[in-house]
Amino acid sequence: MKQSMVMIGLCALISVTTAQANIWQALPESAPAPADNPTTAAKVELGKTLYFDPRISSTGTVSCNSCHNVMEGGDDSRPNSMGVNGQTGGRGAPTVWNAAFYSTQFWDGRANTLEDQAKGPMTNPIEMGMKNHDLVMQRVRKMSGYQEMFKKAFGDSAMTIDQAAKAIAAYERTLITPNSAFDVYVKGDKKALTSAQVNGMNLFADLGCVSCHSGSAFNGQAEVKVGTPVLMKFPTFADNDYVSKYDLAADKGRENVTGKAEDNNLFRIPTLRNIAVTAPYFHNGAVKTLDEAVKVMAKTQLNIDLSTAQTNDLVAFLESLTGPFPQQTMPRLPLTPGKSIVVE
Amino acid sequence: MKQSMVMIGLCALISVTTAQANIWQALPESAPAPADNPTTAAKVELGKTLYFDPRISSTGTVSCNSCHNVMEGGDDSRPNSMGVNGQTGGRGAPTVWNAAFYSTQFWDGRANTLEDQAKGPMTNPIEMGMKNHDLVMQRVRKMSGYQEMFKKAFGDSAMTIDQAAKAIAAYERTLITPNSAFDVYVKGDKKALTSAQVNGMNLFADLGCVSCHSGSAFNGQAEVKVGTPVLMKFPTFADNDYVSKYDLAADKGRENVTGKAEDNNLFRIPTLRNIAVTAPYFHNGAVKTLDEAVKVMAKTQLNIDLSTAQTNDLVAFLESLTGPFPQQTMPRLPLTPGKSIVVE
Repeated sequence: MKQSMVMIGLCALISVTTAQANIWQALPESAPAPADNPTTAAKVELGKTLYFDPRISSTGTVSCNSCHNVMEGGDDSRPNSMGVNGQTGGRGAPTVWNAAFYSTQFWDGRANTLEDQAKGPMTNPIEMGMKNHDLVMQRVRKMSGYQEMFKKAFGDSAMTIDQAAKAIAAYERTLITPNSAFDVYVKGDKKALTSAQVNGMNLFADLGCVSCHSGSAFNGQAEVKVGTPVLMKFPTFADNDYVSKYDLAADKGRENVTGKAEDNNLFRIPTLRNIAVTAPYFHNGAVKTLDEAVKVMAKTQLNIDLSTAQTNDLVAFLESLTGPFPQQTMPRLPLTPGKSIVVE
Repeated sequence: MKQSMVMIGLCALISVTTAQANIWQALPESAPAPADNPTTAAKVELGKTLYFDPRISSTGTVSCNSCHNVMEGGDDSRPNSMGVNGQTGGRGAPTVWNAAFYSTQFWDGRANTLEDQAKGPMTNPIEMGMKNHDLVMQRVRKMSGYQEMFKKAFGDSAMTIDQAAKAIAAYERTLITPNSAFDVYVKGDKKALTSAQVNGMNLFADLGCVSCHSGSAFNGQAEVKVGTPVLMKFPTFADNDYVSKYDLAADKGRENVTGKAEDNNLFRIPTLRNIAVTAPYFHNGAVKTLDEAVKVMAKTQLNIDLSTAQTNDLVAFLESLTGPFPQQTMPRLPLTPGKSIVVE
């Protein structure tokens, strides 16, 4: 079996028209969960608590939520994220909203599952900066409130990194945004979109955007088995000013993971859900505005120069994919009476 | 009128015994608010949103909550706080819980009100790092959701820094923790404290700790007019090993504010509410554990060497001053469709 689906040339294979059935799908009301990690209320509560806990970073200042802020669009409004001690990397934080609908995680699809992804930043020296997962769990075990939460969630008090990752993944599977204006429209309320948004939607299909950005999450991964990367070359058409202006070809993408030249500049196809509220854009965060991002995509992926009117309609359509974001309660982080867990 | 109350020697003035009436007071169920900023639901909601918004820092990574984390003990578990770009200062973040019961703010009492305090970190180059308050409010004004919230809170849409500070202060006045085990005990339920805690409470009075740490917030500021600093020399007794071991005399304290030698090492008397969950201790965060902090205080302020049993009872008593912390909903931060407010 092929390890990954590369969608180069897929535009040509699928004849997309607005008349075609099933192009437009509402987001499911719940996210799929793996057989070995069914979503339960106790796991979600534990996962939310861990997700917001900055004390599992070396400095005590960076939590999952620092870069994937669920009070905003699920990211951090920055071109690249800022980890412990003010360090920055080369890529922007993808939104956590609807990450549950991806077949792989990270910009280059290097993690197969949400569970695997959750562990990565904890020990990345420029993100949460912990030396290893044992030290992460040593801290978690010392915070007495967590013991009871792990027991509730998993029926035992082993408190392993895999349990922590499962809990965080379970929480993330609740971070979904069905019922956007687009979803309401697809479900039958034709007044839910403006005429500009409907124009943009038709254009999105007619131009071929939907070839890659297909399915209810607009990431081409709806029918794809978890663990199978769905990648696309970006930029596909490199002979234009945008590529140098925004340094789009510098990051090798998937090639950094596999070491294969054929994987150069391959990136996971990102969801377009909430794209309007996750500026700046692309893996390197180099493009500041959504209208510019739309023009860049049309040129680099389809070799099309959009008119201003087309751009505006596409932006209007993309704005219909925002939210609504569920109201959440704040977690209470377990306390460590008499001492700080950050100061050893 | 004297500008500040310095409590040096106050121990000698007040003859404290456990038999004395009114030593022990429960925390009020609500915090006092100034006449020009009554607490309203709309202000609290706006204030909470601003409090959690990292986009009013230069890097987009530091909010009020970053250092004064209300999901924890109201601070950040660190000896000193970490602001934008990983910068650190020389002092630890005081807890925001019950800050409403202080007569002045900051370790050196340099802000008269919660409203004044709220503005400080925004433009401190090593905290939130914004160049000036105009730039803070320029960002806030560009986030469309805020306009409606300011209008609801203040009846107009001027969106000034003073309104923002008033809203944050109004939110902070809801961050109080009445009904700790101590409060329940004081209100009549004599089973609310353990015998060790009652022993510690009596010792707290008999040794003279309560001379400074008096009133329902244990900060000596219960009857003191807002804007009047209540300060104490720390260390008072400097001829002991603790002072050098923990470098306790290095920070000039109030002298940094006034330039007067007589204000050397004067610090605001901190609340002991939630002290058990705000390690590490003192203005420089140099002492890691509560039992050590108790011993340091007895020696440097009262020239007393505590026994282990005394220390344990005092710690047990201080633990009775923790929480309970109210459940809160997460704010939804206003979004900026199509662009990031952090990237100009």
